[in-house]
Amino acid sequence: MMISKFLKVKSATEVLDIIQQFEALEPEMVPLEFASGRVLATSVAAGESIPQFPRATMDGYAVRARDTFGASESFPALLEVSGSVAMGQEALSPVLPGTAVGIATGGMLPAGADAVLMVEYTQALDDQTIEVSKPVAPGENVLQIGEDIPSGAQVLQPGSRLRAQEIGVLAALGVTAVPVTRRPRVAIISTGDEIVPVATASLPAGKVRDINSYVLAAQVQEAGGLCSPQTIVTDDLQALTTACRAALADHDVVLLSGGSSVGIRDYTISLLEHLPEAELLVHGIAIRPGKPTILARVGGKIFWGLPGQPVSAMIVFTAFVRPLLARLQGECEVEVRRDHTRTAILDRQLPSVHGRADYLRVALSLKDGTLRATPVFGKSAMISTLANADGYVVVPEHVEGFDQGSEVTVHLFEV
Amino acid sequence: MMISKFLKVKSATEVLDIIQQFEALEPEMVPLEFASGRVLATSVAAGESIPQFPRATMDGYAVRARDTFGASESFPALLEVSGSVAMGQEALSPVLPGTAVGIATGGMLPAGADAVLMVEYTQALDDQTIEVSKPVAPGENVLQIGEDIPSGAQVLQPGSRLRAQEIGVLAALGVTAVPVTRRPRVAIISTGDEIVPVATASLPAGKVRDINSYVLAAQVQEAGGLCSPQTIVTDDLQALTTACRAALADHDVVLLSGGSSVGIRDYTISLLEHLPEAELLVHGIAIRPGKPTILARVGGKIFWGLPGQPVSAMIVFTAFVRPLLARLQGECEVEVRRDHTRTAILDRQLPSVHGRADYLRVALSLKDGTLRATPVFGKSAMISTLANADGYVVVPEHVEGFDQGSEVTVHLFEV
Repeated sequence: MMISKFLKVKSATEVLDIIQQFEALEPEMVPLEFASGRVLATSVAAGESIPQFPRATMDGYAVRARDTFGASESFPALLEVSGSVAMGQEALSPVLPGTAVGIATGGMLPAGADAVLMVEYTQALDDQTIEVSKPVAPGENVLQIGEDIPSGAQVLQPGSRLRAQEIGVLAALGVTAVPVTRRPRVAIISTGDEIVPVATASLPAGKVRDINSYVLAAQVQEAGGLCSPQTIVTDDLQALTTACRAALADHDVVLLSGGSSVGIRDYTISLLEHLPEAELLVHGIAIRPGKPTILARVGGKIFWGLPGQPVSAMIVFTAFVRPLLARLQGECEVEVRRDHTRTAILDRQLPSVHGRADYLRVALSLKDGTLRATPVFGKSAMISTLANADGYVVVPEHVEGFDQGSEVTVHLFEV
Repeated sequence: MMISKFLKVKSATEVLDIIQQFEALEPEMVPLEFASGRVLATSVAAGESIPQFPRATMDGYAVRARDTFGASESFPALLEVSGSVAMGQEALSPVLPGTAVGIATGGMLPAGADAVLMVEYTQALDDQTIEVSKPVAPGENVLQIGEDIPSGAQVLQPGSRLRAQEIGVLAALGVTAVPVTRRPRVAIISTGDEIVPVATASLPAGKVRDINSYVLAAQVQEAGGLCSPQTIVTDDLQALTTACRAALADHDVVLLSGGSSVGIRDYTISLLEHLPEAELLVHGIAIRPGKPTILARVGGKIFWGLPGQPVSAMIVFTAFVRPLLARLQGECEVEVRRDHTRTAILDRQLPSVHGRADYLRVALSLKDGTLRATPVFGKSAMISTLANADGYVVVPEHVEGFDQGSEVTVHLFEV
């Protein structure tokens, strides 16, 4: 890899623009029962009409509407009940003039009938005769063939994340397997000589447990990615290069979460230099925390160098890796309902240092029906501050903070 | 089962109160990597302090703060560099008066030192001497033992749904298995003589595919429940009773989604009469759609009779079954960030009929930075109207609808 020494630190917007240039992964077919939450890869057209027969939407009688015209409580129409439609069966006997056929919601309208008279507007005089106290219009209480979904209609668009509702439309159309974009496979590598496995019962002096592998794995999972078992690699260029090369071979994305040691950023660049097909896209983002973030394309794969500090890694994941995973899944745009932002009122002043974009943690609460954001103070190395925070507020580079009472946009870590 | 003939139709609030009376399921231990999204069953106390050693939060030099007092650019202090702390190792050599030890972020502060001097405020004169241009206060750039989390502190409360952040706290503490409330096992039974499996390629006249099993399964899954393969049972009292009894034996919740036929509600009540331990809690809810909903306790299990119409079933699930599943998972209260409601401005009039609570579908969109709710019109039997809707707005019983421009609360089907 050639690395320009003049590669500038990029703004958050520039990084998000770079992310949008990645292609979605290829589609795969999944059974309908596993399609919820996946992103549709192609459009879906209705292969048939829904409903396929004129269907009653009320309990009552299938009638010829004109036979009820003029009916009222004082001058009811009389109709002869010639039978009833069995639910789930073809309605074989037509409705003749002056007759009515009992029908339940969902039943098939017999030939001859053009409306369903609600049972509430009828009175049975005897077993075979009803009095009609209100006229019904042609088509009333009937769902016509194709009225819900006409055959050939484009019912679902590519790029939409399938919810229960869309699953329902596909079920109605008899679609049992769905073309969705493959889920990105993500490898997480933690490095740093101070990092030991979480299962380490008694911490040796100077060591800390591998928080990032677990936090990032949970975030990858929430973002729709598939996560591989975590690896801790010692802070050694050869070991790191070997581990990253192996991870890139069978994953779409590699997240290398750096230890805290000084040399790790140089190692990350050096290891990219050992990968001939690597192309450095981002070498530093003008945000805090998260500045020492690296993004590279390695052949068809994507490599991220994330800060080792858990709070910083989580913020960078939320702000950049999550949108990338959405992009790889072909999500065309974030839908309004899935928006991870909330508008809230700051209930304290939020100070920031002029000259950099600050990503400041806040906690959300509901007071008197208003969503409030409370800044979470504390050293950024403190993992406890992360658990107290629901998301972050971005204070742009040339703003010196927000006053108490300001309306701010909170980016949620997770919903 | 004894069924009072005088059991009144209940309001939505009354039904939600009944739901709050169910007990949470028992706890189970899950490995930390599978704990994301689960609800904590007990509180978690820190078994150790975090950090366990005084930790540098900046790159620089471990010093005795007093050795830097009075230092300035014009009158720098001079310190002898006596070595450096290896990352992840115990700092064995103490910092003596007048000396400094190199340290990286995350490194262990040696004995004798009480602060970390940022590298930016130093200048190396030679290999062994630095000039200090700014004083550092005792404790500056150091995280003290237990400053993040003191040993014994209650770090997580029962009833909270674990996000990436909480997973991080647990990882930091070396917790590899977490006590969470068991996920509710939910059986879904579709009934109705008109219902055929979704895989039916060519629909016979009068038949429709089993939409509800798939929609409800997706909703159960999103709500944290475990769903069993779907069953379609013909509209026959004996078959339904047998199927429900079997489902109740090995599930916590049974959802019987009724067909559209007239007799199905009577069947549901009749089958509950065949279960001696059944206690009818709700027989009708004063909402539309969804009125013919039944809730019963059967021994320690829960039985729902849901409307057969997919739109109605989905609304009842969202409004009542989802809160029940949250309750069974021990979720103490819905957290602000997980709130499924959005405040939006109606961009058309939303008419409603006086005298019943109307649950009316709306679509959300973002226009000029404002969230807007557009009513989704169309016959309620139309599955296509469901796919177009993001949620519903409740128009209370004694309100005749909302005007265009009103601020409304939208209950999302799914986020």
